[in-house]
Amino acid sequence: MIFDNPLYEPLLGDAEMAAFFKPEAEIAAMIRVERALARAQAHIGMVPKDAARAIDEGLRDIAIAADELAPGTATAGVPVPALVAALRARLPQDAAHWVHWGATTQDIMDCALLLRLRDGFQALSARLDALIAMLADLAEAHANTQMAGRTRTQIATPISFGLRTAYWLQGLLDQRDRLQAVRSICTRVQFGGASGANSAVAPHGPAIIDALARELDLEASSPWHTNRAFAADLTGWCASTAGAAARIAGDVLLLARREIAEVRLAGGGGSSTMPNKSNPVSAEVTVALGRYAATLTTPATLAMHHHEDRDSTAWVLEWLVIPQAMSCAGASLRSLRATLDALTPDVSAMDRTLALDGGAALAEAASFALASDMPRAKAQSLVKPAAKTAREDGRSLVEILSEQSGCADLADRVADLAAQGTGREIIEQIINRARSGA
Amino acid sequence: MIFDNPLYEPLLGDAEMAAFFKPEAEIAAMIRVERALARAQAHIGMVPKDAARAIDEGLRDIAIAADELAPGTATAGVPVPALVAALRARLPQDAAHWVHWGATTQDIMDCALLLRLRDGFQALSARLDALIAMLADLAEAHANTQMAGRTRTQIATPISFGLRTAYWLQGLLDQRDRLQAVRSICTRVQFGGASGANSAVAPHGPAIIDALARELDLEASSPWHTNRAFAADLTGWCASTAGAAARIAGDVLLLARREIAEVRLAGGGGSSTMPNKSNPVSAEVTVALGRYAATLTTPATLAMHHHEDRDSTAWVLEWLVIPQAMSCAGASLRSLRATLDALTPDVSAMDRTLALDGGAALAEAASFALASDMPRAKAQSLVKPAAKTAREDGRSLVEILSEQSGCADLADRVADLAAQGTGREIIEQIINRARSGA
Amino acid sequence: MIFDNPLYEPLLGDAEMAAFFKPEAEIAAMIRVERALARAQAHIGMVPKDAARAIDEGLRDIAIAADELAPGTATAGVPVPALVAALRARLPQDAAHWVHWGATTQDIMDCALLLRLRDGFQALSARLDALIAMLADLAEAHANTQMAGRTRTQIATPISFGLRTAYWLQGLLDQRDRLQAVRSICTRVQFGGASGANSAVAPHGPAIIDALARELDLEASSPWHTNRAFAADLTGWCASTAGAAARIAGDVLLLARREIAEVRLAGGGGSSTMPNKSNPVSAEVTVALGRYAATLTTPATLAMHHHEDRDSTAWVLEWLVIPQAMSCAGASLRSLRATLDALTPDVSAMDRTLALDGGAALAEAASFALASDMPRAKAQSLVKPAAKTAREDGRSLVEILSEQSGCADLADRVADLAAQGTGREIIEQIINRARSGA
Amino acid sequence: MIFDNPLYEPLLGDAEMAAFFKPEAEIAAMIRVERALARAQAHIGMVPKDAARAIDEGLRDIAIAADELAPGTATAGVPVPALVAALRARLPQDAAHWVHWGATTQDIMDCALLLRLRDGFQALSARLDALIAMLADLAEAHANTQMAGRTRTQIATPISFGLRTAYWLQGLLDQRDRLQAVRSICTRVQFGGASGANSAVAPHGPAIIDALARELDLEASSPWHTNRAFAADLTGWCASTAGAAARIAGDVLLLARREIAEVRLAGGGGSSTMPNKSNPVSAEVTVALGRYAATLTTPATLAMHHHEDRDSTAWVLEWLVIPQAMSCAGASLRSLRATLDALTPDVSAMDRTLALDGGAALAEAASFALASDMPRAKAQSLVKPAAKTAREDGRSLVEILSEQSGCADLADRVADLAAQGTGREIIEQIINRARSGA
Repeated sequence: MIFDNPLYEPLLGDAEMAAFFKPEAEIAAMIRVERALARAQAHIGMVPKDAARAIDEGLRDIAIAADELAPGTATAGVPVPALVAALRARLPQDAAHWVHWGATTQDIMDCALLLRLRDGFQALSARLDALIAMLADLAEAHANTQMAGRTRTQIATPISFGLRTAYWLQGLLDQRDRLQAVRSICTRVQFGGASGANSAVAPHGPAIIDALARELDLEASSPWHTNRAFAADLTGWCASTAGAAARIAGDVLLLARREIAEVRLAGGGGSSTMPNKSNPVSAEVTVALGRYAATLTTPATLAMHHHEDRDSTAWVLEWLVIPQAMSCAGASLRSLRATLDALTPDVSAMDRTLALDGGAALAEAASFALASDMPRAKAQSLVKPAAKTAREDGRSLVEILSEQSGCADLADRVADLAAQGTGREIIEQIINRARSGA
Repeated sequence: MIFDNPLYEPLLGDAEMAAFFKPEAEIAAMIRVERALARAQAHIGMVPKDAARAIDEGLRDIAIAADELAPGTATAGVPVPALVAALRARLPQDAAHWVHWGATTQDIMDCALLLRLRDGFQALSARLDALIAMLADLAEAHANTQMAGRTRTQIATPISFGLRTAYWLQGLLDQRDRLQAVRSICTRVQFGGASGANSAVAPHGPAIIDALARELDLEASSPWHTNRAFAADLTGWCASTAGAAARIAGDVLLLARREIAEVRLAGGGGSSTMPNKSNPVSAEVTVALGRYAATLTTPATLAMHHHEDRDSTAWVLEWLVIPQAMSCAGASLRSLRATLDALTPDVSAMDRTLALDGGAALAEAASFALASDMPRAKAQSLVKPAAKTAREDGRSLVEILSEQSGCADLADRVADLAAQGTGREIIEQIINRARSGA
Repeated sequence: MIFDNPLYEPLLGDAEMAAFFKPEAEIAAMIRVERALARAQAHIGMVPKDAARAIDEGLRDIAIAADELAPGTATAGVPVPALVAALRARLPQDAAHWVHWGATTQDIMDCALLLRLRDGFQALSARLDALIAMLADLAEAHANTQMAGRTRTQIATPISFGLRTAYWLQGLLDQRDRLQAVRSICTRVQFGGASGANSAVAPHGPAIIDALARELDLEASSPWHTNRAFAADLTGWCASTAGAAARIAGDVLLLARREIAEVRLAGGGGSSTMPNKSNPVSAEVTVALGRYAATLTTPATLAMHHHEDRDSTAWVLEWLVIPQAMSCAGASLRSLRATLDALTPDVSAMDRTLALDGGAALAEAASFALASDMPRAKAQSLVKPAAKTAREDGRSLVEILSEQSGCADLADRVADLAAQGTGREIIEQIINRARSGA
Repeated sequence: MIFDNPLYEPLLGDAEMAAFFKPEAEIAAMIRVERALARAQAHIGMVPKDAARAIDEGLRDIAIAADELAPGTATAGVPVPALVAALRARLPQDAAHWVHWGATTQDIMDCALLLRLRDGFQALSARLDALIAMLADLAEAHANTQMAGRTRTQIATPISFGLRTAYWLQGLLDQRDRLQAVRSICTRVQFGGASGANSAVAPHGPAIIDALARELDLEASSPWHTNRAFAADLTGWCASTAGAAARIAGDVLLLARREIAEVRLAGGGGSSTMPNKSNPVSAEVTVALGRYAATLTTPATLAMHHHEDRDSTAWVLEWLVIPQAMSCAGASLRSLRATLDALTPDVSAMDRTLALDGGAALAEAASFALASDMPRAKAQSLVKPAAKTAREDGRSLVEILSEQSGCADLADRVADLAAQGTGREIIEQIINRARSGA
């Protein structure tokens, strides 16, 4: 409900996504489907051409308010009976007769949902592409900006800020790929009639489906009114997209902490009591939305447990989940964008971290540098106590190891290894993937 | 979002619960807390009495629109800085100075939430009590109405419709008990200041908390701004309440099916194509809401993973979940009420089921009746094949067993056992619990 | 834990899936990866060929018990350091040196998981194909077996048992399609070294990845150690597969109830007290597993929230969820198979349901039959009261309408419409899809 | 399944909790219930005293292996029919006859579960108490150890390490309170017979329940076989306990990062490639378990959707969830203990953080110190730019403000305010609550 709450909507919601699920949008889409159905049935000769034209034109410019349909929706449990009555009341009787011919409520609602999902995915796809382009540029710009890699919360080996960014990008590229599959699933027209047998239009069901698909620019398909995994698919995509964004935002929150400060975030929210604070609002929101979206996958999957030939106890779960999932994905990408727009890396802070504990992050590089002269086990057995000495005495790890091993050029070799080992090949692969659009 | 959608709100939402979470209600509650804080701080001498009076009176009748605070909320990630600025702007400067003294955003939002939860629980409690009274009457009225018990989808032994109803009631009584605990947890005032140390008002934090609790009619408590299990508690209660309702509604959906028809549901939604249908709308909605509510427990529990001294990545989860949880619980009790209001048991249909397969539901009673004359294993070894014969030949199980066992009075003994064994003692216990209010 | 509990494993678990996740299988797969890595690195000249051969051959036939690695796993939080030590201890020192060269724990564990998932998916795919073939035959055999469609728990219009079966089949076909995508995602080799930069092997990371992919028969890929949506993908697939199975099993539970009895289930579990009962065990299990599997999608999606360059707080979630998800999917398909193997439709019971209330299920057909002579609204206005009369007076709906409308051939026209309208075209499309394997 | 996997069990599982859910423990508990039932029924004269004694003594020392019951469990869907047959086979026929008299499978399984839950809660309660005592001592010891509070990832105002610890403790105290309620709910005996009417023992159901409760040291209760919210309650408690632990462990992970280093963790897991690392294994595990546990609340709540008079499709969910929930809670408390045992605060690091940006954490204190001389708004308007200057020029914030405001004693006043404002009153309240045991 927060997504629609005017106090919180600019913070947590997504006006563009929300618009697709407002009653006016839903009603308009349902009317569009009823019109397309009349045209499709006229095309195959089932509905008189005059009646179809009257329906198509007569309903083109009308708008029906939610209030008009809400009481009937509460009675029937679905809005379509009230909608059909309202549409017929607006048409001459001989055309009214043919509105909704052979259709059932679910046909209309499913198709009307598909139309709005298509537009929603289009918008999300554009946001994703913009983020991909932005992160590809950022990864490229910082391919040689060394920073400390962190594994399991600890400073590990040097990477580059470009590599970190490239992995962020990779997560979004994976979602770009997944989106293709989900869009394809959500584009199959659904038309099955009362019990899914298309009994009232038999044997012309397949022909109507073909024509209706053409009218709505969807794909023809057998009816799938009881096989509803599409809701799990689309919610899964929204949740993994919000997760990919949350992963990035969570990394940013760590990097932007004052004690680390390897990135700075411009803007930020003030505190009601602490003048020194500047809260990383959009990153926080991105993380929170990602967590919430993950929990929507369960009701979306439970909605598949749809029984017999129509099951409102399961269907209603879709109504509850889908608008939220799309809004989460949308708001998540928007907040991530705001986060990244505000972000500036601080190279000197990155260097400062790399120098901690005598440059302990170079331990692996040192161990591999030494291992070209001695067995790896021996190299490691030198490095571990040297790292301890460096940490405790505030000396440089590489200097200590130079002394102990007698490798005069160890510092150079370690620096070369470290510079070489920041993952430039990986960055390049991921950027190429981003820019090839594949 | 469906809960707020005007097309679906009368079907799936709960206007009374939703009202507590509308921005105007939240803003009003926050203003109420700021006023109470000024009075409390005046009471202990921290804020001048004149300033407190100016704040209390000056803010008593104002209303601030969501639109005024939405931009600031988007910037700060919370509405309070914008609210405090708006309140100060409405006051003379020497009073304005003292608004929100020593408080932090979370203090105001938490207390404002508690005030609305209190009212929400009050409303839910009343609905629960009404359902309890109704089901107690129904259980009492049908204590002797025999019907077939069903275990694991199969006809088992005879029970009564009163017993089935009493178990429905028991589920609601359990929720009545649980509500006491949740209300008690949600009544503890929260006031901790910037980092939860009440640093700006030290050492008067405890005194302010006591006074603020009195002003708001809450309980005094140490600050608990980072220990947020209350959200899991209240969402858990909402989900188990919706679950208790869904369990009943699911039973009703089975009993009301045409093939069983042991209860009839008046009203019901029509179909857009099938004139013979009357859909059990409110029972369907109750089941769907129960399932959805169960999935809210996970984000509510994840919201406890609140780190350091305030964590918006976790806090926002509460904002997303709590209004939905309360609406689900409310709409669920409302829909259950509509379902039960429409329900009439059909005694003859219940008898018809009991007579299926030669009265196979009496097999256990027959086995126990025989077991007073022979070892139980022998009795069971007679009953199993006799039940098969009865089913296949369309004869009465008890007659067959009378013949085979030579027990002339078996039919009477079985009928007595069956009549005695429909759980009257249990019904009475549960009704007593309902009526004692404990 | 129930999945591994020997008391419940034959009921709820899946021995074949569980085997992939037993420690011996995991350790064997990790050894296989370490051997393949040595071969791959020898191939590109990074590891001496003799050392690689010694590793490959020396570790080919060894088995390391879980007990040997468990203490080290508890200390390190991952089993690989203890494994690598154990492997090195079994090799000559100059080969031991090269084991795990440039690799990190996650590389080994990820690749070892992929190998087992591949086998697991192979087994699941075979089960799915067998069910698809079986349901295609069943749908074909019953394309003309009329039964009552049920929508929203109510008798709706006639369908055929073949159509119901075809829709069950469609759900499995959708999962067959989805499996292709998931298998493809889970086949990408993962090798990134300490912080995902492949620093220790730079600049040969891509060459190692290519060679390792060949050795393991996986696809080459950039490292993806921090982008873990594959776990959400595979768990989503398992959950939607278990959901597709649960949907079918739930339908069977309804049809097999004694009050409906349109299918019979052979076998079934006895009751400890009721000799008349025969519980539909495998169908119950299928429904329960489907529900449980749906809840695994949330932790699987949360596992994507993997931070920085490795994050055990998220990674462990995968370990907890993936074995359960695969076991659920496996056990679910096995239980569904047992359910369908035991199932026999009862045509006479189906006819009995269609005749209820004077054949009320024909109301839509009657309304369309009449609508060829009069406006649809008028036809519907005749049918609704006639359906009421039929229900209350125990008369045939079609007879009543014949009289009222004067359509002498109405009965024939309705029967024709009903026979024509049971969805044969749809059945054919779905069977074709099943048999074309596409 | 990981919880039982011998490779991972010492890391992620809990041997003590797992033992309660092993088949031998479950079978032993069920035998204990069958014996108690015979004694209880002898007590009220329903079962001959000799038979009861034969049952009680004859079954006292027997053990039945899971393997013996597994096939029957797979057939019946529950283990009790096979168990009862196995028990009867071990007794003389005239006693065997009376085993399980009037009981149904669910009665035995529910009571056997309650016995094990009681022991499980006892063990968890002891662990919780030990943690509470430990944290109370830690909070007391560090009541004056100043550290930077962090809100929304940012340095906020000074608190003390004792206050942070006290809030950790508060979360555990809340769980101690909640445990009382859950234990009380899980102590109510469940005995309802075939369909929950206690038909086979009518009218003696209440008397048997009283006697059985005494024999098992449980509370008497009406049967509650279909009202299963206890599973949601106990899973909710396990999840919120694991959440309270995860919250602490997550804070520790942040504080123990090298860039912050305000606590040190002894021990820790090594890396397979990086000698410098020491991974915070037990804290990571605690966080992961907390997240996983949160997701178990959903299936536990769905298990309440238990229909008619017994519903295996819901009941099985309890079997899947409860053992995991208890293991999660247990392993979580164990891992938290290991984390806290390894923890040492580093006071100098805490001071270093407080001094960052010229002591920016003192901004609130400075603002309040100034506000005693000027309006708060003016004070804040001085502090904000001064904080900026301090940060940019590397000067002390308080010095700058002293100069600008002319308050010579500002530094002392700020230091006093900061020292006074670290929440000692709160620490004391929470420690008192811990030590009072209430």
